[in-house]
Amino acid sequence: MIHQDTIVALATPSGAGAIAVIRLSGKDAISIADSCFQSVKSEKSLTNQKTHTIHLGHIIDGNKIIDEVLVSVFKNPNSYTGENVVEISCHGSNYIQQEIIQLFLRNGCRMATAGEFTLRAFLNGKLDLSQAEAVADLISSDNEASHQIAMQQMRGGFSSEIAKLREELMNFASLIELELDFAEEDVEFADRTQFKELVERISFVLKRLIDSFAVGNVIKNGIPVAIVGEPNVGKSTLLNALLKEERAIVSEIAGTTRDTIEDEISIGGIGFRFIDTAGIRETKDVVESIGIKKTFEKIDQAQVVIFLADSNNFKDESFVHTFKIEVEKIKNKYPLKPLLIVANKVDKLNASQIELLQNDIQNVHLLSAKNGLGVDELKDKLLSFVNTGLLRNSDTIVTNSRHYDSLLKALDEVDKVRHGLESGLSGDLLAIDIRQALYYFGEITGEITNDDLLGNIFANFCIGK
Amino acid sequence: MIHQDTIVALATPSGAGAIAVIRLSGKDAISIADSCFQSVKSEKSLTNQKTHTIHLGHIIDGNKIIDEVLVSVFKNPNSYTGENVVEISCHGSNYIQQEIIQLFLRNGCRMATAGEFTLRAFLNGKLDLSQAEAVADLISSDNEASHQIAMQQMRGGFSSEIAKLREELMNFASLIELELDFAEEDVEFADRTQFKELVERISFVLKRLIDSFAVGNVIKNGIPVAIVGEPNVGKSTLLNALLKEERAIVSEIAGTTRDTIEDEISIGGIGFRFIDTAGIRETKDVVESIGIKKTFEKIDQAQVVIFLADSNNFKDESFVHTFKIEVEKIKNKYPLKPLLIVANKVDKLNASQIELLQNDIQNVHLLSAKNGLGVDELKDKLLSFVNTGLLRNSDTIVTNSRHYDSLLKALDEVDKVRHGLESGLSGDLLAIDIRQALYYFGEITGEITNDDLLGNIFANFCIGK
Repeated sequence: MIHQDTIVALATPSGAGAIAVIRLSGKDAISIADSCFQSVKSEKSLTNQKTHTIHLGHIIDGNKIIDEVLVSVFKNPNSYTGENVVEISCHGSNYIQQEIIQLFLRNGCRMATAGEFTLRAFLNGKLDLSQAEAVADLISSDNEASHQIAMQQMRGGFSSEIAKLREELMNFASLIELELDFAEEDVEFADRTQFKELVERISFVLKRLIDSFAVGNVIKNGIPVAIVGEPNVGKSTLLNALLKEERAIVSEIAGTTRDTIEDEISIGGIGFRFIDTAGIRETKDVVESIGIKKTFEKIDQAQVVIFLADSNNFKDESFVHTFKIEVEKIKNKYPLKPLLIVANKVDKLNASQIELLQNDIQNVHLLSAKNGLGVDELKDKLLSFVNTGLLRNSDTIVTNSRHYDSLLKALDEVDKVRHGLESGLSGDLLAIDIRQALYYFGEITGEITNDDLLGNIFANFCIGK
Repeated sequence: MIHQDTIVALATPSGAGAIAVIRLSGKDAISIADSCFQSVKSEKSLTNQKTHTIHLGHIIDGNKIIDEVLVSVFKNPNSYTGENVVEISCHGSNYIQQEIIQLFLRNGCRMATAGEFTLRAFLNGKLDLSQAEAVADLISSDNEASHQIAMQQMRGGFSSEIAKLREELMNFASLIELELDFAEEDVEFADRTQFKELVERISFVLKRLIDSFAVGNVIKNGIPVAIVGEPNVGKSTLLNALLKEERAIVSEIAGTTRDTIEDEISIGGIGFRFIDTAGIRETKDVVESIGIKKTFEKIDQAQVVIFLADSNNFKDESFVHTFKIEVEKIKNKYPLKPLLIVANKVDKLNASQIELLQNDIQNVHLLSAKNGLGVDELKDKLLSFVNTGLLRNSDTIVTNSRHYDSLLKALDEVDKVRHGLESGLSGDLLAIDIRQALYYFGEITGEITNDDLLGNIFANFCIGK
């Protein structure tokens, strides 16, 4: 599958900005760009330029000047795709972006499909498949942890671990297949004890990788947290307190709204998505209102539930009573979901009132979001729901469900090999299972691919990457 | 006002795309970038690189790798701002953009204010003021005509016309001021006849430029057109027919929706904004419904009104009657607003029915949007509302209300000079008026500026440009 045609696409987000970048890749990328380019130095041609150089000039359509641009030239194989690549940095109007793209389409380019630049990079051996997938993850990463994992994967961390196992397994496979050639002589080139050790080690690593998927998934997508509680118990203050000194996932720099910041918070590098619980309880009757469908719908979506209350209300015995009933209802409906009961505004209680509160409500978390009291402890509790140990010792974490799938299948085959070894299965039958395990390893890094698989993977990319 | 500090900003639109570009400008741009950069070639330093070169490597924060990037280096004075400039092309995630910007902020950059890169380009003499303003116009241009004007202005078309007049006027001013030094000798270095000719020529050019503002305004902002009519008379078909073979302002390429395309159409390079008239008439009673506030609100916003009807309805005499009343109502309320009465679906009428229709309704425009009949003629009529002659002979067109203001003031002063000349005003008094006219010319190109003026102009830019 060698691509001869030259593709073009907008590489920057659509919409108006100061500049936009249009990217061409393919055999004729430089010559096509050159045919539409007039350097400020009249005699300069892009085709004679060195790789990794930038040239000021105009994109022209016949006599018509479309824009003043900077053109970056990358020569095969020293480019992202491994092909000739040209990047046009133009003024950021939609009109100009479009005029330039259409000009190139008329001059022999075709529109790139989603992910086609990265697909070409993969096909030209610049990246393996899991690295290519990490590019998409990197682009969509929105917190430190998911960014770190994608970065590690893009730099080959995951691939090299898989590749190492694959190579060792392949060595044994070769030895066992060699035995088959000497079947009548009943030799064993592959030391069965060593092989058993290897299979067990592979099995152990596969299990660890498979287990990491749960935490990988959380890291990639953030942990959904539902805050349940009456209005005015201090939800916003709590979010702001959590936000303090931690960086919001989307900062003010990019012109995003405060709303987004309040709904997504990065704690210890892990994204927490706070599910909007505004207006959950309009009625005053706690017992009645807890039953409303809406609250449970929010909790359904969450992995963690924070039940936030105003400490002052606990002075009232009847409130304590109904509150306990509420808590029981949630616990009964969601026995496995972590529930944090948080009493806010404790600064307004005196010591004996606090003691009473702690006696009344088991495991209540005392908080004064306003004064920052108990905020760090709450963060620790939230983080305790994520196995961050995995992250910290920089083990490989699987975040991609395709990889997860292949790993499960590989483990299945490796288990078969182990059972085969234990039951003294013959070499020819062992070889089949080993080949199958190798196949699934190869699927992850892309040694084994097919068009459908590639199509599925790259269709999830944005156009221009 | 020399800037010593180094500024940083995102230059591409915010949001996720394949790549994003972060731009640094200032004395220390290259050294700051270098301190956060690790080349793939370990020994490479950005500070030793040639201008207009690109370097692959990682943005690092201590030991932490933030992203794999391409870094473009531009050396003072060969850059957009005339200062040292570095552009970082990183993966397009919001998280990465932000991490990199924050890293640079911690390492000695400060956030650029809106338009600050272009302001610096102006202050460093890379652009005059009207060219700088054209950059903003270029970025916001969304049709061929506005793009052409901005491009022409950015390339100095407008400035050079103004500068030429200014120079000629300045020469005479010098001669007249020279006369003042020899006041007692009563000499005339400045030939009064030639001077009068010049003043008249300047006055003529100024008037032309001032007049061009009306068309310039239309070109820059598009012409708002209201389509009035009952549902199902063929509004969508009409818009699609107008669109055919013309390029939509926002094409499908950038992932924009069909909706936008239908609402803005470029005809002959001029933008026409069709004001949404959906749901204008819910009631069946034409006479009653025409009165509704909504319709008139739409027409209020429009420069041109298209009254679209289904030809078939004209077979019905009572319809013709109420239709005529409607037309009169619109004409009475908006005597100066061009009204195009368009009878769609004429393909369903026979020859005698068409004749009858033309007799009944004066100046009716016959259309079959479905078959394309009468579409070109309708385009011509729409275009006739714009003085495209001005565009075609590539005269300078004023689109900027600040320039318009300065031109009006300059004309006022030039008129004073002319009157002064006619009434034999003394040289010293003439000189004052000439200086004042020169002042307003200078305001346009930026020879005369003050911080308030610059602040106002560049505050309208996006950050990163």
